Amino acid sequence: MAAKKGILARLDAGEVVIGDGGFVFALEKRGYVKAGPWTPEAAVEHPEAVRQLHREFLRAGSNVMQTFTFYASEDKLENRGNYVASKISGQKVNEAACDIAREVAEEGDALVAGGVSQTPSYLSNKSETEVKAIFRQQLGVFTSKKVDFLIAEYFEHVEEAVWAVEVLKESGLPVAATMCIGPEGDMNCVTPGECAVRLVKAGAAIVGVNCHFDPTFCLKTMKLMKRGLEAAKIKAHLMVQPLAYHTPDCGKQGFIDLPEFPFALEPRIVTRWDIQKYAREAYNLGIRYIGGCCGFEPYHIRAIAEELAPERGFLPKGSEKHGSWASGLDMHTKPWVRARARREYWEKLAPASGRPYCPSMSRPDAWGVTKGAAELMQQKEATTEEQLKELFAKQKL
Amino acid sequence: MAAKKGILARLDAGEVVIGDGGFVFALEKRGYVKAGPWTPEAAVEHPEAVRQLHREFLRAGSNVMQTFTFYASEDKLENRGNYVASKISGQKVNEAACDIAREVAEEGDALVAGGVSQTPSYLSNKSETEVKAIFRQQLGVFTSKKVDFLIAEYFEHVEEAVWAVEVLKESGLPVAATMCIGPEGDMNCVTPGECAVRLVKAGAAIVGVNCHFDPTFCLKTMKLMKRGLEAAKIKAHLMVQPLAYHTPDCGKQGFIDLPEFPFALEPRIVTRWDIQKYAREAYNLGIRYIGGCCGFEPYHIRAIAEELAPERGFLPKGSEKHGSWASGLDMHTKPWVRARARREYWEKLAPASGRPYCPSMSRPDAWGVTKGAAELMQQKEATTEEQLKELFAKQKL
Amino acid sequence: MAAKKGILARLDAGEVVIGDGGFVFALEKRGYVKAGPWTPEAAVEHPEAVRQLHREFLRAGSNVMQTFTFYASEDKLENRGNYVASKISGQKVNEAACDIAREVAEEGDALVAGGVSQTPSYLSNKSETEVKAIFRQQLGVFTSKKVDFLIAEYFEHVEEAVWAVEVLKESGLPVAATMCIGPEGDMNCVTPGECAVRLVKAGAAIVGVNCHFDPTFCLKTMKLMKRGLEAAKIKAHLMVQPLAYHTPDCGKQGFIDLPEFPFALEPRIVTRWDIQKYAREAYNLGIRYIGGCCGFEPYHIRAIAEELAPERGFLPKGSEKHGSWASGLDMHTKPWVRARARREYWEKLAPASGRPYCPSMSRPDAWGVTKGAAELMQQKEATTEEQLKELFAKQKL
Amino acid sequence: MAAKKGILARLDAGEVVIGDGGFVFALEKRGYVKAGPWTPEAAVEHPEAVRQLHREFLRAGSNVMQTFTFYASEDKLENRGNYVASKISGQKVNEAACDIAREVAEEGDALVAGGVSQTPSYLSNKSETEVKAIFRQQLGVFTSKKVDFLIAEYFEHVEEAVWAVEVLKESGLPVAATMCIGPEGDMNCVTPGECAVRLVKAGAAIVGVNCHFDPTFCLKTMKLMKRGLEAAKIKAHLMVQPLAYHTPDCGKQGFIDLPEFPFALEPRIVTRWDIQKYAREAYNLGIRYIGGCCGFEPYHIRAIAEELAPERGFLPKGSEKHGSWASGLDMHTKPWVRARARREYWEKLAPASGRPYCPSMSRPDAWGVTKGAAELMQQKEATTEEQLKELFAKQKL
Repeated sequence: MAAKKGILARLDAGEVVIGDGGFVFALEKRGYVKAGPWTPEAAVEHPEAVRQLHREFLRAGSNVMQTFTFYASEDKLENRGNYVASKISGQKVNEAACDIAREVAEEGDALVAGGVSQTPSYLSNKSETEVKAIFRQQLGVFTSKKVDFLIAEYFEHVEEAVWAVEVLKESGLPVAATMCIGPEGDMNCVTPGECAVRLVKAGAAIVGVNCHFDPTFCLKTMKLMKRGLEAAKIKAHLMVQPLAYHTPDCGKQGFIDLPEFPFALEPRIVTRWDIQKYAREAYNLGIRYIGGCCGFEPYHIRAIAEELAPERGFLPKGSEKHGSWASGLDMHTKPWVRARARREYWEKLAPASGRPYCPSMSRPDAWGVTKGAAELMQQKEATTEEQLKELFAKQKL
Repeated sequence: MAAKKGILARLDAGEVVIGDGGFVFALEKRGYVKAGPWTPEAAVEHPEAVRQLHREFLRAGSNVMQTFTFYASEDKLENRGNYVASKISGQKVNEAACDIAREVAEEGDALVAGGVSQTPSYLSNKSETEVKAIFRQQLGVFTSKKVDFLIAEYFEHVEEAVWAVEVLKESGLPVAATMCIGPEGDMNCVTPGECAVRLVKAGAAIVGVNCHFDPTFCLKTMKLMKRGLEAAKIKAHLMVQPLAYHTPDCGKQGFIDLPEFPFALEPRIVTRWDIQKYAREAYNLGIRYIGGCCGFEPYHIRAIAEELAPERGFLPKGSEKHGSWASGLDMHTKPWVRARARREYWEKLAPASGRPYCPSMSRPDAWGVTKGAAELMQQKEATTEEQLKELFAKQKL
Repeated sequence: MAAKKGILARLDAGEVVIGDGGFVFALEKRGYVKAGPWTPEAAVEHPEAVRQLHREFLRAGSNVMQTFTFYASEDKLENRGNYVASKISGQKVNEAACDIAREVAEEGDALVAGGVSQTPSYLSNKSETEVKAIFRQQLGVFTSKKVDFLIAEYFEHVEEAVWAVEVLKESGLPVAATMCIGPEGDMNCVTPGECAVRLVKAGAAIVGVNCHFDPTFCLKTMKLMKRGLEAAKIKAHLMVQPLAYHTPDCGKQGFIDLPEFPFALEPRIVTRWDIQKYAREAYNLGIRYIGGCCGFEPYHIRAIAEELAPERGFLPKGSEKHGSWASGLDMHTKPWVRARARREYWEKLAPASGRPYCPSMSRPDAWGVTKGAAELMQQKEATTEEQLKELFAKQKL
Repeated sequence: MAAKKGILARLDAGEVVIGDGGFVFALEKRGYVKAGPWTPEAAVEHPEAVRQLHREFLRAGSNVMQTFTFYASEDKLENRGNYVASKISGQKVNEAACDIAREVAEEGDALVAGGVSQTPSYLSNKSETEVKAIFRQQLGVFTSKKVDFLIAEYFEHVEEAVWAVEVLKESGLPVAATMCIGPEGDMNCVTPGECAVRLVKAGAAIVGVNCHFDPTFCLKTMKLMKRGLEAAKIKAHLMVQPLAYHTPDCGKQGFIDLPEFPFALEPRIVTRWDIQKYAREAYNLGIRYIGGCCGFEPYHIRAIAEELAPERGFLPKGSEKHGSWASGLDMHTKPWVRARARREYWEKLAPASGRPYCPSMSRPDAWGVTKGAAELMQQKEATTEEQLKELFAKQKL
């Protein structure tokens, strides 16, 4: 794919790069990923399903096919009774994911990005050497499969993120790094600005946040990162890939703490109009790598592409089946639905939950457990009945 | 597929038959169906996307692959500027949909059902002969493609539904018929009980409701249908395929009237736990054909199969990637999420909307326009600017 | 007070008669009535507090001073450990209440109405003779104190209401009768229409509903009463005195079943604008005796008087301190509050609850216990610990 | 009243001093105060109404009768068409208010506090000399009427509050000072901690906040004040008198900015249980002067007294008519209401709003207008039509 412009060439030229959406959540709903372990063995078990989701994001406008390798480190694949690694090696999963991503990327104007994320080993107090070895294992696959660039994403601790960036930099490929933190900073209270600075210093050319918080919160954090970089007089490209769930009520650790995580988040799903607002604000903030994370379905990605079509000069293929700002509703049979074929209508609408017996916000269920705590330790065996009982007792229902 | 038990044999034996979910809404989000016309030309344009969705439903536990032929009548394909029919004939769409459904059905224990739905022609006051001719066109494809049975679904007027059943019966195949009505009955105020009786008398072996209302409302309507049949001493199998959106605030015409239709329904999406409750209640009511309509994603269908696993004796393939009642969460890294690996937790949870600036219910936006009204007339040409302006003026923002 | 026009003369002339608001709830908040027994001994213990509330309603526009004799029957005063009767006789309470009502009524254009309400004796299966004897005791005071007319209010069973009307009619005074029922009718499912007919046949000249439901529901019930009277070709004046609490989620027995009753109803309190809407709708329905019950504070009554000022030709005294439709806000210091000095602003406003962790509706906590049940039996002694434990066990928290 | 312990003697001894509730809001609902100007001429016009409210607070447990002199400065009495001063002099209003407060205080164990609050003159850029002259006018009445101590309350700018304290100190009486600010500080961004320090340095022996925010926010601000004083090694007594409205959605200027202010705040009214929680938290924070402001009705004050009864050793008189923690419900006729006679029930309850068409939070309507802005200028004449039109145009409905 020699002809394709690289990620940095695009960003340096001021182009908007649209990321993809959330694989684990989308494939969980489709039946191919198990909530709990959230591991990506589907790349081997059901390649057609993973390929189809890639295609949908490509069609929606994504310029990046992230390899479906989230939590594909060996230590995660064999954690807490999730004996995937015993049947399928981590290497196979990573290789299959690269092949699929490349296949679909070639069908359009997309790059392939190999991705690593935080490890149970780090939370279990393993050494820098041990943790870096894990990243290096995945990196081996990425380089042999010739991905276009690399992403270190979903880190709660800047220390581990820096280690990841340092390993990925060994490849010579461009590295992007995003943390799953909010405005309050990382688990050790390192501010977003400071996180950004450290990541760039470690070698990341693109920095930002992904997951854990909704678009509004992520953009708040991005503002702080931007300010931090400016204060340190450091230049870097900005990238944001938020949740597609509204999280006005999260604490420091994001949506994982919400009582609804992960099986009752439906009422929080953002609309395409929420996304258009987000894309515009991200753009205005100077962010040029704009994508999504958990909850982002193809139509959410398309909404980014439609909002920024004036700047980019074109619509994605998926817009063949979508009239911008609801204009397609003028083909609806019912006149009162045709009357909704306009921007003002959807911009003003405050959508009802249809759940009068439910509240609008939840209190986060954070236990304040952090790195090194016994309950966070990696454990190959399944959680025992005994262990579960202890947890149930701790939880107030 | 000579070996497969037919639909009536299954129902007569008291087996639970699990329907599939909503194609137009799911494929709209994936980028293959246009909201507004809602027509199914994707069966020709993107067969891999349609096939994948069929597979996901099969994997989730569906026993029926409904051909993706909703609104595939010739008069709908060329309505209001949706010039699909000029590029792809209705016959091609129907044939392609049959082929895909059959292909996937053969991969498991599923039957193929050919489906017809209400027509713009009926709303435009066309005669019984004209309307029936349209159904007969689709039926021709279904019989040549050897579907296993037929479904007449999504009818707001029992008169048109009866016409459809009468046509479908000409094939000699078993016929199911479901209306998109609520407890208040059809658009002419024919009660659900009376609708059921007329449909069975017209030849339907299976009757019920689909679309337009949430599970709770649909089951209310089913109770009335059941009582109507009992009062008339008529026997028939019962079938229900509701929305996967909460609609406590709908009027007679269902979710189409809600201001959020179709682009801001997200907060109303039901959870898997809502579905398990629904499946149990449907079963207890004596309904044995239990499926879904718009909004139903594969994981919703899987929830039906998991809830009724004790009765059926097996889990669907998709449950390999889903611990019943959240048990898979015992593999989660965070202890407070592992503590959610139990039924009581999810049954008690009232999920927050994450939208404190939004209400919990909406006032339906019903214009009281019914069959024969000028604004409901079929119109081949696109809605004009002039016509849109008139509609905007009628609508209070 | 010979010069004052009587209640029937006013209604016959088509005048609007404005009732008063809720005494037990208002005085509970002021510290003079105990929630639970809800008995009115404050008329003896703190006459100045009762007098002040009467004055506020008079000033707000009330044309009727109801004697503060709700639940002032001897059997209620000594129920379940509320040993009021042992200190102050029921007769004393009733007399004091009459004196206060008369004193304030003379300060303006108001009539005095003696009121009786449902008795524990009826719920305890006492005979017609026994129950009537209780009403007759209160009536004795009312006639000796020369009240202007009588009201039998807050009856859940039309049978007991008819008994009350029959007793009150013995006095020769005009009798009004209101039941605390909703559209579903009385506890024995007698429809509102039938209730109205029976009450008029028993001698009531004015009929309607009070308490238990919000203005919207009460007006629904009134419509049914009106239709019932019309169908029976019976003429009577109509009267309505709803709650000032929103109750969209009540079952048959009204707000008593709501989990929030009686100590967490605050978020349901209606605004003055809700009241203006109610007053207008009541008037349009042909109701001419329009007042309030529990939750109605003086400013709610004033809102009735202000809404109907065009019809009545005058404002109440209390409007000296209230600009109609918020016009007084033009004197506010802050410009953005002055900008709220207009009708459209308040009519459009959907007031937020300020409680994002709370739902918008509750499920009623109805036990289905009715007349004659052991738990409803009158009991002079306080509820025992044992009895409470049994109740706690029945209640799901 | 020589025998009564003074305010500082009480606080120095560690006693809890319970303040009173909100006069202008309570009397507005009763019909004696006009929303908009909010001036207290009722002390002259309707002394019985003011006296009754004082009595209710005394009975509820208040140890302080604040003279009803809020906004009783001459410049406020004649602002924007509120021509009170032309009929009743400010001196008369202040004198009458003192007499009533003293009369009721003598009926129990309460002190009289003369109160001054912020002035239109300050907002109109008048000089320190001019503003102080206004405070001195009110102070003259307070000293001649021999109040027990003085309160400078409801100040948005610490500068003006300091001026007020300096004037009040001239009397030699103890001075308390509370600002109507939130955690973000005063209108000029002076932090709560700094405000507290300046007030004490100016001579206040008691400092804190009142009005504008709900109990939760006020306690947050109090924490900051406490920390500020500790950091400056300054000792002072702490005092808090919050709103009885939930305001999770306020900006810097508090509830005045909420679209619901002042005529649709009902759904935000706090329950007695909210108050008990507040009283406990205030006590735990070390605050010993605990009262309320706008929205506080007598039963809210009683809830403070009941919560702190264990510490104080006695219940207020008003508790004769209130069973602590709902115990009085054991006298209710209905068994399911008797089952609510316990603390756990009410502590767990999340009260529904009964308003499914309303949101749970509002966006503040702050115009960012501050001291010296033309629209804040004092203006004797009524707001003109022209001026109103300009304001309406600025406001987005």
